[in-house]
Amino acid sequence: MDASTLQLIILPAGVIAVLFALYLARDVLSRDTGTREMAEVAGTIYEGAIAFIRRQYTTIALLALVGAVVIGAVITWVENSAEVAGTDVFGVELGIRTAIAFLVGAACSMASGIIGMYISVRSNLRTAAAARHSLVGAVQVAMRGGAVSGFLVVALSLLGVYLIFVAMGGLEKPAQAPFLIVGYGFGASFVALFAQLGGGIYTKAADVGSDLVGKVEAGIPEDDPRNAGVVADLVGDNVGDCAGRGADLFESTAAENIGAMILGVSVYAIALSAGWPNPESWIFFPLVVRAFGLLATIVAIFFVRGREDEDPMNMLNRGYWVTTILSVAALALVTNVMMQTPGQTGANGLPTWLFFFGAGVVGLATSVVFVYITQYYTSGSFRPVREIATASKTGPATNIISGTAVGFETTFATAISIGIALLVSHWLGEQAGLLTADGTNVGGVFGTAVATMGMLMTTAYILAMDTFGPITDNAGGIAEFSRAEAQAREITDRLDAVGNTTKALTKGYAIASASLAAFLLFSAYIDKVNLILGSRGEPLMTSVNLADVGVFVAALIAAMLVYFFSSLAIRAVGTTAQSIIVEVRRQFREMPGIMDYSQRPDYARVVDITTRAALRQMVLPGLVAVGTPIVVGILLGYQAVAGLLMVGTIAGVLLATVLNNGGGAWDNAKKYIESGHLLDDDGNVIGKKTPAHAAAVVGDTVGDPFKDTAGPSLHVLVKLLATITLVLAPLFIR
Amino acid sequence: MDASTLQLIILPAGVIAVLFALYLARDVLSRDTGTREMAEVAGTIYEGAIAFIRRQYTTIALLALVGAVVIGAVITWVENSAEVAGTDVFGVELGIRTAIAFLVGAACSMASGIIGMYISVRSNLRTAAAARHSLVGAVQVAMRGGAVSGFLVVALSLLGVYLIFVAMGGLEKPAQAPFLIVGYGFGASFVALFAQLGGGIYTKAADVGSDLVGKVEAGIPEDDPRNAGVVADLVGDNVGDCAGRGADLFESTAAENIGAMILGVSVYAIALSAGWPNPESWIFFPLVVRAFGLLATIVAIFFVRGREDEDPMNMLNRGYWVTTILSVAALALVTNVMMQTPGQTGANGLPTWLFFFGAGVVGLATSVVFVYITQYYTSGSFRPVREIATASKTGPATNIISGTAVGFETTFATAISIGIALLVSHWLGEQAGLLTADGTNVGGVFGTAVATMGMLMTTAYILAMDTFGPITDNAGGIAEFSRAEAQAREITDRLDAVGNTTKALTKGYAIASASLAAFLLFSAYIDKVNLILGSRGEPLMTSVNLADVGVFVAALIAAMLVYFFSSLAIRAVGTTAQSIIVEVRRQFREMPGIMDYSQRPDYARVVDITTRAALRQMVLPGLVAVGTPIVVGILLGYQAVAGLLMVGTIAGVLLATVLNNGGGAWDNAKKYIESGHLLDDDGNVIGKKTPAHAAAVVGDTVGDPFKDTAGPSLHVLVKLLATITLVLAPLFIR
Repeated sequence: MDASTLQLIILPAGVIAVLFALYLARDVLSRDTGTREMAEVAGTIYEGAIAFIRRQYTTIALLALVGAVVIGAVITWVENSAEVAGTDVFGVELGIRTAIAFLVGAACSMASGIIGMYISVRSNLRTAAAARHSLVGAVQVAMRGGAVSGFLVVALSLLGVYLIFVAMGGLEKPAQAPFLIVGYGFGASFVALFAQLGGGIYTKAADVGSDLVGKVEAGIPEDDPRNAGVVADLVGDNVGDCAGRGADLFESTAAENIGAMILGVSVYAIALSAGWPNPESWIFFPLVVRAFGLLATIVAIFFVRGREDEDPMNMLNRGYWVTTILSVAALALVTNVMMQTPGQTGANGLPTWLFFFGAGVVGLATSVVFVYITQYYTSGSFRPVREIATASKTGPATNIISGTAVGFETTFATAISIGIALLVSHWLGEQAGLLTADGTNVGGVFGTAVATMGMLMTTAYILAMDTFGPITDNAGGIAEFSRAEAQAREITDRLDAVGNTTKALTKGYAIASASLAAFLLFSAYIDKVNLILGSRGEPLMTSVNLADVGVFVAALIAAMLVYFFSSLAIRAVGTTAQSIIVEVRRQFREMPGIMDYSQRPDYARVVDITTRAALRQMVLPGLVAVGTPIVVGILLGYQAVAGLLMVGTIAGVLLATVLNNGGGAWDNAKKYIESGHLLDDDGNVIGKKTPAHAAAVVGDTVGDPFKDTAGPSLHVLVKLLATITLVLAPLFIR
Repeated sequence: MDASTLQLIILPAGVIAVLFALYLARDVLSRDTGTREMAEVAGTIYEGAIAFIRRQYTTIALLALVGAVVIGAVITWVENSAEVAGTDVFGVELGIRTAIAFLVGAACSMASGIIGMYISVRSNLRTAAAARHSLVGAVQVAMRGGAVSGFLVVALSLLGVYLIFVAMGGLEKPAQAPFLIVGYGFGASFVALFAQLGGGIYTKAADVGSDLVGKVEAGIPEDDPRNAGVVADLVGDNVGDCAGRGADLFESTAAENIGAMILGVSVYAIALSAGWPNPESWIFFPLVVRAFGLLATIVAIFFVRGREDEDPMNMLNRGYWVTTILSVAALALVTNVMMQTPGQTGANGLPTWLFFFGAGVVGLATSVVFVYITQYYTSGSFRPVREIATASKTGPATNIISGTAVGFETTFATAISIGIALLVSHWLGEQAGLLTADGTNVGGVFGTAVATMGMLMTTAYILAMDTFGPITDNAGGIAEFSRAEAQAREITDRLDAVGNTTKALTKGYAIASASLAAFLLFSAYIDKVNLILGSRGEPLMTSVNLADVGVFVAALIAAMLVYFFSSLAIRAVGTTAQSIIVEVRRQFREMPGIMDYSQRPDYARVVDITTRAALRQMVLPGLVAVGTPIVVGILLGYQAVAGLLMVGTIAGVLLATVLNNGGGAWDNAKKYIESGHLLDDDGNVIGKKTPAHAAAVVGDTVGDPFKDTAGPSLHVLVKLLATITLVLAPLFIR
């Protein structure tokens, strides 16, 4: 098989994945919908979620339209401005093309979000219904529902990038087109930022708000149907975890593909001058790898099965390992076929492709390592969570101090793993021996790009596991709310616990991919800047010099930005929660029949109020995120923006780790106490309704906006910094 | 007056400041020591503090001895090793000299810590006694006691740097000596790290531990004499706030002086070749500025006076403004006299010195700005603290979430102010027109150095205000403990509140100086590396390239280090607090007479146990801080270490800001509620013993190890990174 044949797989693989998603959707929708009560609650959740998504995506679409016009106008102005000329290196109307690519990227991201969300709020009911009969059945419904999102997100991203690449003339001028499609990645990040922010604010405001007014003030249990905020809480699980993370990973796969293609351009030039066969295969490589990742995931979905008495996590893990092993095999095939370098070998006479195969395996291995790091820090089986649970014995203050220490500590394993992955994949790439005409070794950076591609091969599966989380969470809520049989509730409880783990794992995965990708996107930015500088005969940018005062100040601002942005996101949760509290209080006051079940609370109104408040609150942090790199770029120049991008990535990734893992650990410390694992000095169980449990609940509540609003929004912020600078590079070169 | 005359002021100014400190010490010691009960408590605190300091400084001295031997051996090995030769550029036994300078720096830092501490634990009693008669009298005793520390710290640092500079032949070879004395700065940082860590762990472990076992478990009030941990708590205020911060600022003034002198060497070369008079004045400039800062502070101490009914903060502020205004005047004089550049002007024909005068004023202005930022975020008169107090109404979780949001938010004003100060002082320096033979403009970096020098002119006064904090805190404890008259307690309470503010201000000041200094110390590092590279005929280091994978990974590790280090420091507080809890519980159990006052608790034993635990716990974070730059330097090389240094500074400064200001805001939100400012919806006061107050107490307890252990230790960490890399640079060049 030769490389040009292998390239043909991109389109069919994408289409197959979409068809498979549709098959899964049909399969899920055809399943039993349980009792009438179940269907009723599920209907309310469905309506609330769809109402939120409709209104949110209308807002985002408007913002995206404005964004597209501004981007188009600015780049066109730069193109036509004599002083800042140089973008005509591309010989096309870059402004209009970028604006169109931006809109297509935004639209694809929104489409995959909406469809995935639609299936997920349909799957929750079917999962609850299946849980009445069988654990395996419930796992399968939830996982297949989740996989619809997973496949659509990755396949739409792949097809979108490929088609826009072709539309921009990628088949004729493969070396030029990658630079023309960066707008697609920016469109995806733009949508992801607001989807994650709005969803994240909604979900935690609903959670915190209805808990405070229900449990604390009215003294009724969690998820009690008398609490008017309960439905908003269940809706929140979908719009935050499911739609938000989908947009996050859509963005990753899109932007990182484009970045890797840009890096492929330098190797393409080498291949061309060396007369290697199919030089364009170096540019298509990321798309082909992604296509194989989709096919591997399709196979893996059929391995999600097991015995009724098996730990559901084992069933999911089985599929994950199948995906990983198939991905390694596919990676060997793709690197071997597409990286043909006749007459040239890497270090020690080994073939060049072997080094890149190694780099890809490093990427896959890194994602496995992150799965274990996340488990260690957020599962009740290990020291960190137990330490927090023990600290709860002396009250909420020691619980918070201990959780903060754990959150801070998690940065250690995270940074060391990322550091090793970067150094090893870079070193492997350097050994491959890809030298440009002037002797520059471009293999190192390309090695990190291949590692990122390797890691992202399992994205569809990871995303399916992630969406499994809100589906089972909702299934549990539906079972509780509709007073389903004990067996069904027991099964949904077990699945819910597994879902908490898979949600935490996805965040670890998103962080790892963002960090590896940073290096690649950053290098793509330098390539683009140098293309422009070169065309103007100006000296190229050979380094991002931290000793330059502008770069240093930009780095300082970047590290500040991640705190400031998180502060705004966390505060937005508080403000939104306040509106919920006011409304639920009003309903308790004005509808006295609620407490004795004779009146039904107005759930829809709370959903509506939360929706409007969350959307209002997402705008300020969103604009700060978009505006900062632009302002810094204009004031301090293109080199400073590169510093902003790199240090912002480092700071954002680490703060997100602290917030996600700290929040996860607090959550599970509470669960650890609730499941009766905490003992006092005499060996008696310290369980629910003890002061220690109350202290652990405080930690859990504090962790909520950390791990579900600020942390995940930071992943997107980091990638947005990369795409925004890549798109607006011409503006920063003066 | 010419520059060589002005240089003569260094020695006399240092000696005058020491004599003035002795005069103040005599003055304080001669004052009334109050009642017998007061003297008794004060005696116990004194004994505990001295016991801690003795044992701590013995440990530190041992560690410093080991450090000196290792440093001496490593540098000597590098010097004698053929492959890594090049340090013979200095033509002296660099290893032995560095080891000696290290030991002298360590010894000076320890001496100023011990003496300052000795006076401060003597001043607390006199302040309590003075408070029986007069507010102004009490303010004066506390401020003069604090000023002893302030003057000794700054004067010993000035004299130490000057004398070791002279001893290393600075008068004959002024361009070479600055490089030989970097060991002095490292010695100072080394001591500061352990002093701040040990003191910080001690103070908060004693605070948290005795509160938990006394207030929560035994149900007796705070500072109750029946609690065996109370004396340890009072001792802690001295060893943490007073000895720790003293060592921190001793380190700042020493290391930043040396760094500025290294930068002066490049200007010296220009002055020499241009034939300007007194070229060595560019190297002596930092010391002369510091000398004038001391003289300005001596004058200011006499302005700390006022009316009995005046806000004590006004009296302290009056002195601060006198120091600042005199410093501006002195700066004008020193720049004008020492920066003579006949035949050359800066931009627009303005004299060169004028630009540097401007840069110095920028530094002074930055410290004033930081004073106001800190006040805004940590005082009950403004939004942030009120927001936290309001959030306490809905319980501890919302209090913590709100406080975290405020802590994160404080990075905004901090980063923007530092960014502006750096850009403006750098720009001013560039305009001054200092060009080297090859056309490099060295004025920019020198401008940031002058700004740092300007900022540090007020150090002695700031440190006096800082030590005012623990002295008045202790005076309050003594008044409470000895059941003094109501008037005395009322006055000490007022002073205690002012002391909380001054302690917060000093932390802001320490952060601002660390950030400005980073740029200067970093440039000094590059100068030193290039001196070595140049002597070996290798290409010079012209940039710290973030796009290099090694530099990027080092930057990632640096940002991780600040979290990991803080995690270790916070956890150390928890572990140490546990040992206190166990011991106090034992005393309650085995000495039943304690509760009815018939038995006296064994305070000394708790002090002893806390001392031992705190010292054990300080070792791990200390070694991590010292070890990380060394390991990174050896593995990834000299350029990567520069990245570690810069990004570590950025990350450390911002995390310290979050921890210090978040902690301060939580503390004052509690005080805000206690003073009856929080109202419910109907306008009733929500005061002490309400759930809101309990929630605010949780926030205050969480903030304690943040603001008094981890935050201040981070200041030192940041500066340690700078001095360690400066000293070990030869080791990293392979």
